Amino acid sequence: MREEVLKRFKPIFYPKSIAVVGALRDPNSFGARAIKTVIDLGYPGKLYPINPKVDGILGLKVYPSVTQVPGPIEFATICVPAHAVPKIMEECVEKGVKAVHIYSAGFSETGTQEGRKLEEDVVEIAKKGDIRVIGPNCEGIYCPESKVSTFSGSSGDVGSVGFFSQSGGHAMNLLIQARVLEICFSKVVSYGNACDLDGADFLEYFAEDPKSNIIAMYIEGVKDGRRFFDLLKNIARKKPTLIFKGGVSKAGARAAESHTGALAGSSAIWDAVFKQTGAVKVSSRDELANTLLVFLHQLRPSNRKVAFINAGGGNSVFAADTLEQAGLEVPTLLPNTIKELRQFIPIPGTSLKNPLDLHRYIIHIDRVIRIVAKDSRFGAIIVALYPDFMLTYTAEVKDFRDITRGIIRAKKSLDIPLTATIRTERVGLTGEIERLKAQDRLIKAGIPVFSSILMAAKAIANAVGYQEFLEKSLNK
Amino acid sequence: MREEVLKRFKPIFYPKSIAVVGALRDPNSFGARAIKTVIDLGYPGKLYPINPKVDGILGLKVYPSVTQVPGPIEFATICVPAHAVPKIMEECVEKGVKAVHIYSAGFSETGTQEGRKLEEDVVEIAKKGDIRVIGPNCEGIYCPESKVSTFSGSSGDVGSVGFFSQSGGHAMNLLIQARVLEICFSKVVSYGNACDLDGADFLEYFAEDPKSNIIAMYIEGVKDGRRFFDLLKNIARKKPTLIFKGGVSKAGARAAESHTGALAGSSAIWDAVFKQTGAVKVSSRDELANTLLVFLHQLRPSNRKVAFINAGGGNSVFAADTLEQAGLEVPTLLPNTIKELRQFIPIPGTSLKNPLDLHRYIIHIDRVIRIVAKDSRFGAIIVALYPDFMLTYTAEVKDFRDITRGIIRAKKSLDIPLTATIRTERVGLTGEIERLKAQDRLIKAGIPVFSSILMAAKAIANAVGYQEFLEKSLNK
Repeated sequence: MREEVLKRFKPIFYPKSIAVVGALRDPNSFGARAIKTVIDLGYPGKLYPINPKVDGILGLKVYPSVTQVPGPIEFATICVPAHAVPKIMEECVEKGVKAVHIYSAGFSETGTQEGRKLEEDVVEIAKKGDIRVIGPNCEGIYCPESKVSTFSGSSGDVGSVGFFSQSGGHAMNLLIQARVLEICFSKVVSYGNACDLDGADFLEYFAEDPKSNIIAMYIEGVKDGRRFFDLLKNIARKKPTLIFKGGVSKAGARAAESHTGALAGSSAIWDAVFKQTGAVKVSSRDELANTLLVFLHQLRPSNRKVAFINAGGGNSVFAADTLEQAGLEVPTLLPNTIKELRQFIPIPGTSLKNPLDLHRYIIHIDRVIRIVAKDSRFGAIIVALYPDFMLTYTAEVKDFRDITRGIIRAKKSLDIPLTATIRTERVGLTGEIERLKAQDRLIKAGIPVFSSILMAAKAIANAVGYQEFLEKSLNK
Repeated sequence: MREEVLKRFKPIFYPKSIAVVGALRDPNSFGARAIKTVIDLGYPGKLYPINPKVDGILGLKVYPSVTQVPGPIEFATICVPAHAVPKIMEECVEKGVKAVHIYSAGFSETGTQEGRKLEEDVVEIAKKGDIRVIGPNCEGIYCPESKVSTFSGSSGDVGSVGFFSQSGGHAMNLLIQARVLEICFSKVVSYGNACDLDGADFLEYFAEDPKSNIIAMYIEGVKDGRRFFDLLKNIARKKPTLIFKGGVSKAGARAAESHTGALAGSSAIWDAVFKQTGAVKVSSRDELANTLLVFLHQLRPSNRKVAFINAGGGNSVFAADTLEQAGLEVPTLLPNTIKELRQFIPIPGTSLKNPLDLHRYIIHIDRVIRIVAKDSRFGAIIVALYPDFMLTYTAEVKDFRDITRGIIRAKKSLDIPLTATIRTERVGLTGEIERLKAQDRLIKAGIPVFSSILMAAKAIANAVGYQEFLEKSLNK
């Protein structure tokens, strides 16, 4: 079973030869970008641009059709107008291509009879030739291990997140967003209309793929709900499985239909799916990226209690409200902890209950973290930083590196998961530069940086929820 | 009544003379910042730094105590340690000071007996001398019209939003955030522990103040709930009144207590207050800023139906879900509208139902907006822009100014409120620079730019909710 699944996807993620059908000279075209990306990644296999009207692209010989390529072709990316796709598919059958990715849009998602017919034709031809199809109407695949990618500008960094997405935009944006957060992928698939390979197939593959430890997906609908559910029930408890479900509202479901032709299903059904399978529900791409951080860093908060450290009373109240509304708890520090902190943090302008409002004493962040972390009740610590505000109004903070260094120092002796979030008011570039620098320093030191207090709260709550599901199902 | 209220606050917002008690030479100290701000704003009245140990500050003569200042003092800002405040207050009584702002922390918010006692003493002395008190434990006041401010770096731009905040941090940050969004204030007050003047007093003042057309507040608790409610019931229907209530959770309420000593009250009670008074509920500082934009631009969306224009199918699904969950509607475009748009927007890769996914045809944004706006069902139009993504992947977008110019052109002939939101992936500075530039161009053209799709949804839903309340109460 396992071997069979892995084998089915081998020509997709590990093809020995790739054709890009409909490649254009224009460097902005999809085909030219895909070819350049594969070359840049250092793909060791054969790469064939196909176009009857073009001679050479990026120094490669261009063939008029796949059938005229001398060697075998395992995988083809098709980027010709929709009406021309069936003909290309016929040629792929003739050539013995194993799998194709159809970039072109203009199929069932248009809601037109013509589009639906074209898609049916593609499916029929693919069946005849035993070709696996990704798409149509999608961005295709990315596998850094094999140096194959149809996503332009892929980093090539190998990671352990297997991500499949019905939206090409979400896939491209998550790749961009992930890079600075040091989230790396084993494989990424954007699969659009899912005329052949669907969510359930990718789920099955990533479950078996030894290179994927975490599964993430953006789905608008699944074709075989029962199969998807049965797979998920089995898989989510073995590998953390994060689902960003698009089309949870009436208008969203309609938008999903005209995006990928998907039938979204009711949100009540999906809520039941999450509850019964242990799959982690995320409601936005941001929540997906932030929740991935928690799982990738293997934070495993032991419970819902968090210590929140920051500067500012209003910020503290907001954080407490946000954390509690996300399902976390913010218990008061123990009297002994407060006593120890009070030895170097005066009372006026500060609060040491939890959230901790350190005010100007944020400069003692390393000592504060270490003392708070001695309280074993806490499942996680969140430090919230406001670089532009602190640099402007806290005279003691002359160089923001002093703050991040303190956090990094504290982390070294810590058992409790330590996380951070950084906010600037985004009024000019100064704050943004400080934010990027601070974020980079913390991430490089292994401290995940969430994009907001809300996202920190949701990501940690998601991780605890997953832990709780596992414990409950073990005890059953 | 009205005259009385305005008169009570005159020494606070329009003082003819100001003393800064406890001013230090250190340019980072609160007092020195306050003095510099007042000088920079061009305050025409008398300004007296007070400190027995300092000779001159910023070129001004320093007096050893308020009692030794030759002329009268209407308003004093006190920034000495808490234990020294009662003595200063006694001197203020002797001097006949009309109102004070106590910056110092270390009073009832500490929860200590000493702190509570100090605050009681302050109240007693103030009563004796008929002095109005703002604070303690707060940032004070800002009135651009009179060029008075204890908030360093105030812009001095006169606007129509009256804002009072129990958190100094939220007040300072809203001022920073507001500047780039061109939100300007009539008056701002940060009033911390509210030992004398409380939320109800400020509410009463802003209701009568002819310079304040919109009232916004951040409150953690109110001392006289009945009075606050009665005022609000009367005021919110006359001037839009936005309330960001901190401490809505158990942990948040506790944090509020150690921040300003406030009793937060149950969230059920507050929900009833919102429902009965027509005050607009916002749940974060971001939602406050974004909702202010809608009221300031007087958008008055006629109903809950919005047209959402952007590029990207996944983005469209997410927007539809987000808008509907915020209580807005995203109805399908009329067949005639779609037909007209289809004359220049091909089917593949696009969707024209609503949300509109224009894909690369985003370059025709001006024509699209104009055609969509002919459909009088819509209460508002939202355009979502992704500058870094569009510049990277949409070959047709060579200069992002082409897009913003199109939107600005379209606005000229429009009756329906036109709004925008801009997202970048925040991975480097390029996207941020494009975002800031695009935001600036749109704002200068009178198009409000929300910070996210979620914030656009909430802000517009808040405005419609307020309209609906007004209509309902008119029909009663």
